[in-house]
Amino acid sequence: MSVSKEFARYVTGLAYGNMPAEVASFAKICILDWLGSALAGADKPPIQMMAQVVHELGGEKQATLLTGGRSSVTQAALVNGAASHIVELDDIHKASIIHAGTVVIPAALAIAEWKQKSGRELIEAVVAGYEVCYRIGEAVSPSHYYFWHNTATCGTFGAAVAASKLLGLCEEKIVHALGSAGTQAAGLWEFIEDGAMSKQLHPGKAAMNGILAALLADRGFTGASRILEGDRGFVRAMSQEADPERMTEGLGTTYKIMENSFKIHASCRHTHHAIDLVVEMVSRYGIAWRDVEKIRVQTYQVALTITDNPEPASVYAAKFSLQYCVALALVKGSAGLSDFTEEALHDPDIRELMRRVEVSVDPDIHARYPGKWEAAVELVLADGTTMQQHAEYPKGDPENPVTHKEIVRKFRAMAADQPQDKIDHFLDVIGRLEQVPDVTMLFAQMKGR
Amino acid sequence: MSVSKEFARYVTGLAYGNMPAEVASFAKICILDWLGSALAGADKPPIQMMAQVVHELGGEKQATLLTGGRSSVTQAALVNGAASHIVELDDIHKASIIHAGTVVIPAALAIAEWKQKSGRELIEAVVAGYEVCYRIGEAVSPSHYYFWHNTATCGTFGAAVAASKLLGLCEEKIVHALGSAGTQAAGLWEFIEDGAMSKQLHPGKAAMNGILAALLADRGFTGASRILEGDRGFVRAMSQEADPERMTEGLGTTYKIMENSFKIHASCRHTHHAIDLVVEMVSRYGIAWRDVEKIRVQTYQVALTITDNPEPASVYAAKFSLQYCVALALVKGSAGLSDFTEEALHDPDIRELMRRVEVSVDPDIHARYPGKWEAAVELVLADGTTMQQHAEYPKGDPENPVTHKEIVRKFRAMAADQPQDKIDHFLDVIGRLEQVPDVTMLFAQMKGR
Repeated sequence: MSVSKEFARYVTGLAYGNMPAEVASFAKICILDWLGSALAGADKPPIQMMAQVVHELGGEKQATLLTGGRSSVTQAALVNGAASHIVELDDIHKASIIHAGTVVIPAALAIAEWKQKSGRELIEAVVAGYEVCYRIGEAVSPSHYYFWHNTATCGTFGAAVAASKLLGLCEEKIVHALGSAGTQAAGLWEFIEDGAMSKQLHPGKAAMNGILAALLADRGFTGASRILEGDRGFVRAMSQEADPERMTEGLGTTYKIMENSFKIHASCRHTHHAIDLVVEMVSRYGIAWRDVEKIRVQTYQVALTITDNPEPASVYAAKFSLQYCVALALVKGSAGLSDFTEEALHDPDIRELMRRVEVSVDPDIHARYPGKWEAAVELVLADGTTMQQHAEYPKGDPENPVTHKEIVRKFRAMAADQPQDKIDHFLDVIGRLEQVPDVTMLFAQMKGR
Repeated sequence: MSVSKEFARYVTGLAYGNMPAEVASFAKICILDWLGSALAGADKPPIQMMAQVVHELGGEKQATLLTGGRSSVTQAALVNGAASHIVELDDIHKASIIHAGTVVIPAALAIAEWKQKSGRELIEAVVAGYEVCYRIGEAVSPSHYYFWHNTATCGTFGAAVAASKLLGLCEEKIVHALGSAGTQAAGLWEFIEDGAMSKQLHPGKAAMNGILAALLADRGFTGASRILEGDRGFVRAMSQEADPERMTEGLGTTYKIMENSFKIHASCRHTHHAIDLVVEMVSRYGIAWRDVEKIRVQTYQVALTITDNPEPASVYAAKFSLQYCVALALVKGSAGLSDFTEEALHDPDIRELMRRVEVSVDPDIHARYPGKWEAAVELVLADGTTMQQHAEYPKGDPENPVTHKEIVRKFRAMAADQPQDKIDHFLDVIGRLEQVPDVTMLFAQMKGR
């Protein structure tokens, strides 16, 4: 049986009723976390440019744009996918290096809204989409990632799966949808040299392409039956690995969405472990930053290569400064999206405290990277007290899971520009998503619908 | 200077006023020939499926769909590009293996119609788009073609260039458009194993993606500045060749559109030389097929590997049967789209004549392939007369150019399902395109506008 056929059989067979309760709960957290990222990104210039293009092109009012108004499902997925990948707080799967939320969820949500699907159907589609794209991403890792943005390329299959599931496509049509998805898969890393906006184009476009693949398949449009493992297919053309069988190993017995990592702090992932420890110590022991004479952070070399910066000159650079992030967390007790401001960048207290931060490599910690992303933090107080804590994984990794409360707090920060009643509405609807008969109610309060 | 920057400078500098008259005339032939292919393909099932999806998605009525009605420029380009690549009679550039017409022209035409551009501006955009995608295709040949459908991948750049030219983008924005085009470039050959409809999806989608890249760039959306030659760019990711400088060698001094080949006969290109010779002998000497006792065709091995088939079972297979094609040409005096019918497939005269066709490899001809695609045909008549002719290139290659009359005849056959006055209108408007102030008049007679 072809890989596409196995995936198609898995997708048609997946049912909310057979899903463990924690998987459905976890999917709801993914959707909430995604929505927060998309709301926080919607007003950023690249997303506004894209929304302007979409409004100019026009389309049936099928699905909500988080930038305002509605458009066709393909164009709504384009804008919403792009919006969710700009503040860099979206979820990530370490093994496949895919930000699945940014592709699978906008595609699923657009179709679910258009076809007035239930919350349970949305959850099924998201779980299926994550599963398929994570499996494809793992099979082409690590070589694929050198040239290709896995989120975009592998994500296209995930979006096609999510859309196909919600459209109720049969096995045969899902195979065709995967064929049309794979032959549209694109997204080169070259943009990173310029910091160009392709970073946002990629997930949005992958979501759009996945929907197009599913809509075409629904009409009978055919695609390659062996797009993944075929001689001139995705895996052989775009990676050095050649183990396509790995893609379907244990398929149907796993819920890979549960391997997802969330980002709580609005900074580089390599600063998160240290921030976690500082936030915990501040909270547990009621430490005032003025009493701290020395902060020693030990971690692995890669973390320092990327984040050892005692003089960050911009808010963006501050997110990649371990010294800044640790000092910020000590002063504010958090390091969320609303903590990284121009004001905080120049805050003399934080700048003063940064001088007391010492960063270094610990050989044992370094030896365990990248299996573990560890840090140890030691605080030396003015009264001579010394406190030490150590973390093996940053908060939000499956091994150090985030609490529901923390995700809600993060969501409120991400959605801070929205009216309070709208934030509450989103939290309410997603909180009881499995009971929602029609997901259009999620957007009932969006302007311009 | 980056490759994209050089291309951008070339594109902004290109002007109808500086173009040799034969280039503009040639571009008009490309447009006419493309339109014929698109009209002939518009009613085919895959194109109808795609048009249904596009109608469902909706969009501003910016550009004409050759399937009827109008839609947004992106979606019109999608449908029209796909329509033009299904009857397999569209133009081809041998050195880059690109059917540029199917991508560049639908993109250019959609924007030109939307923005009510003149015929001269349309010609400029088409010439620029062909130039850029041919140059990119040559630079990544032959390795790219193993996995990737050059028409789709390289064509995306051509579509972006054509759209950018018509939108009047500055150099800097064209660089961004090329960046966004390259990072969307996709299209795997894997579909060929199933004969899947991706063949049509590819050019349509490339046209759509190119337009999207240009529209985004127009709004200030950025892309990779070195998308072609960069370390993680198009050439290194998707080919084994690494000679990006070749792309811009002599740029501005060439009109590569003039290297275009046209297909006059509706069959496999490897049957065209023999058909040409038979048609010419029939026409010149007034030969009646009943008087022909033997037809000997000598050619290169590849031609026979693909087209030696004495018993084709379908109209499609007949187009890949050298014996059938030669017999058809002898009976009908042509081998156009309207000659390959179910009726002609079972025509006892043609079937009888096929038994008199002998095909073989000529070692000298074989040795000169693929530089030349040659054939020699010998007719032995009942009265003992023997006639021989030899062709070095099939008709329609730049070395054996097609006449304007032949292209017009082909167009009339391709558009045969359209009302006569509409066919005449298309021929009239394209014939005097350089004098047309607003290309929307081309579609004045389309239904549903």
